[in-house]
Amino acid sequence: MTVFRLRIRNAQQLVQVCNNNEKAKRGAEQDTVAIIENGALIVDAQGKFAAVGTTDEIERWVQAQPQPVTFEKDFDATGLCILPGLIDGHTHPVWSGSRVDEFAMKLAGATYMEVAASGGGINRTVRATRASSESELLALLNKRLDRMLKCGTTTVEAKSGYGLDTETELKMLKVIETAAKSHPIGIVATYLGGHSVPDGMTAAEATVDIVQKQIPALIDAKKAGEINPYFIDVFCEKGVFEYDDTLTILQAGKDAGMKINFHGDELHPMNSGKLCMCLQAHAASHLEMLDSANIQAMADAKTFAVLLPTTMYILRLQSPPARELIQRGVAVALGSDYNPNAHCLSMPLTMHMACCLMKMTMKEALVAATINAAASVDRADTHGSIEVGKHADLLVLDAPQWEHIIYEMADTPIQHVLKDGRFVVSHGQLL
Amino acid sequence: MTVFRLRIRNAQQLVQVCNNNEKAKRGAEQDTVAIIENGALIVDAQGKFAAVGTTDEIERWVQAQPQPVTFEKDFDATGLCILPGLIDGHTHPVWSGSRVDEFAMKLAGATYMEVAASGGGINRTVRATRASSESELLALLNKRLDRMLKCGTTTVEAKSGYGLDTETELKMLKVIETAAKSHPIGIVATYLGGHSVPDGMTAAEATVDIVQKQIPALIDAKKAGEINPYFIDVFCEKGVFEYDDTLTILQAGKDAGMKINFHGDELHPMNSGKLCMCLQAHAASHLEMLDSANIQAMADAKTFAVLLPTTMYILRLQSPPARELIQRGVAVALGSDYNPNAHCLSMPLTMHMACCLMKMTMKEALVAATINAAASVDRADTHGSIEVGKHADLLVLDAPQWEHIIYEMADTPIQHVLKDGRFVVSHGQLL
Repeated sequence: MTVFRLRIRNAQQLVQVCNNNEKAKRGAEQDTVAIIENGALIVDAQGKFAAVGTTDEIERWVQAQPQPVTFEKDFDATGLCILPGLIDGHTHPVWSGSRVDEFAMKLAGATYMEVAASGGGINRTVRATRASSESELLALLNKRLDRMLKCGTTTVEAKSGYGLDTETELKMLKVIETAAKSHPIGIVATYLGGHSVPDGMTAAEATVDIVQKQIPALIDAKKAGEINPYFIDVFCEKGVFEYDDTLTILQAGKDAGMKINFHGDELHPMNSGKLCMCLQAHAASHLEMLDSANIQAMADAKTFAVLLPTTMYILRLQSPPARELIQRGVAVALGSDYNPNAHCLSMPLTMHMACCLMKMTMKEALVAATINAAASVDRADTHGSIEVGKHADLLVLDAPQWEHIIYEMADTPIQHVLKDGRFVVSHGQLL
Repeated sequence: MTVFRLRIRNAQQLVQVCNNNEKAKRGAEQDTVAIIENGALIVDAQGKFAAVGTTDEIERWVQAQPQPVTFEKDFDATGLCILPGLIDGHTHPVWSGSRVDEFAMKLAGATYMEVAASGGGINRTVRATRASSESELLALLNKRLDRMLKCGTTTVEAKSGYGLDTETELKMLKVIETAAKSHPIGIVATYLGGHSVPDGMTAAEATVDIVQKQIPALIDAKKAGEINPYFIDVFCEKGVFEYDDTLTILQAGKDAGMKINFHGDELHPMNSGKLCMCLQAHAASHLEMLDSANIQAMADAKTFAVLLPTTMYILRLQSPPARELIQRGVAVALGSDYNPNAHCLSMPLTMHMACCLMKMTMKEALVAATINAAASVDRADTHGSIEVGKHADLLVLDAPQWEHIIYEMADTPIQHVLKDGRFVVSHGQLL
């Protein structure tokens, strides 16, 4: 007797995204999506794909297993589409306080840096987050993760960075680690002690604090099993951490065993491509101001670009060079950049804005929110496509074509969300 | 004994929008929103507001009623905000077929008119809609209205216009009338026989068909109680119905008892302001290309402007002159323009885009989606604000400040939707 966790049959479209074990899609390949018409799949008892094919192929595959075969759940997807769960490559989901009034300031024309100079911005959230307990922050985080899951995100990159001191950065990373162990969504943690220069310090002093105090404390806490930061991040920006400080911090993080995934070239050209090359950075985000030489450097370094269309839209920034990044062979991923300055939890809307505002195609956007986002958080071996051996994170779409997940904008036709082959959201309700 | 349908108390903010019986908000007044802190309200047995004030004031008001007083439902809004239900001033919700592939064409750079010339666009939806039965169209419409209600829309303007012949336009208006009588959402019907020039006709021939066949048939069907078109609409555009044809059709509609609410100046300057003045039009939509003289003409004619930010965003059009419209005293309303070309059912996202893309403030956007949208569909006497005597259409927001309904973008914190004082949506589920 063989027991499987799940069978899905008769899907109008089963959107694998990849079917040849690609670990990312670059250049013209980013504009391709592997689809099986009348598709089916089997999830094994460990929550991984055991078989993927047409409904007929899977029928024969099942017959070839030791009989009898049983399925904990058998789902008929007639008229529906199946997609990989979405992966959000860049979020700041741990914070307290409110910044809703700053949105009004920005609409009235204040720039990001003017808001910061008036006592708002990141350092305002830092004050609130420092004052919040671990349990308060966890409750806020869990509520946000619930909403992301309902919007179809099954894996999320989650940054610290509203602490800017050892104690609060550790607190945030502990909260992220607790959620990673208890919430159904998959979480990849990023340490972002260099998110902003804390009040009362220079960038040089903050750099020393990060390198000499925060990172050593992180190493100890990681050894103790309290936190698990996979990436190190810095906001590399004029007037924040500039090129040399960024290099120092990222190198120290790398030496401490973290991979590099940083904010670059959002508001000013910062030579982020050169930084990617020097540090062999895994990923870089934002990139609105990146020039051709730096794009080529990113391509040569095989660094993933994580683009954030909602932030560009809200801050009225110029578009990052999505087309040139793709043309030069950089694998482009997407992130919601969820944070108190850009309150978007929805990867479907993020994809829509990537299409309308950054001139990506729908296929490029889906690749960017699945396999390439998985790659940007170094999870392409296990997530981001519907292929045998990967985790069975899935969306069931009440639509006859997968493009509806983008086309329908805010109110998407996501009917079910599955994590490791188990239903975690149905009809907008957490299960 | 006095029986009321509903009491709500202790609202963090009760956002009335208007508190002085304003029938629309123009100029600087559009940037004002009446709010009661620690607010409360009573809904009478007919579903209308009986009293609105602070929780203390309402407590005293209740004590002054003939005792004992009972409430069918008593809701504690501690920590929550109460807003008027949103009003969507412009939608095309009755259609069948699919246009999702045209979105891909448009992303690749095809213009609206190029898509139409390739056999796509409105006339493609016309072919599918003509081939659909009344019951098929009603099922599709009801599903869309359900989704709008979940997004917080409690009253919607709904156009025909995918028939372009007498039979199908009547069919669409019958479907709208059936929904108006059976669906909880409030519907104001608009006849849009002049949405596109049907295949095989010139604009002049189509104008004759509308004036001599369609409108007389509408008059008969309305007398028979089968349909109830309140407005007449035309797509006034270069290569579609130009100035003179538009004038002829709208005048004929007005003579038949319909008010005027038309599409103007979307892709080319069409002198829509002059048209508003000549016809004393009630409302005009789109207006991306409107110049100052025509804005002033709209202001002088007291015509409502219904702006459609999602369409501008998807078609990458220039922004309509929202700021100059407001400055010159035109009351600006908003619509989702829900249609197969711009699949947005969400007024919160529409408001967000009005802020980010058209430079409206959050207050202006809320006014535009409540009292001014009510005014644009001639329902300001009965809807669009929380004032005694009006219909108790309400949103309950899980947020401490009303601005969160805009700020949170796609995944809004709407906890409940009420129509005429009754809960119709709770936690994303229809009741």
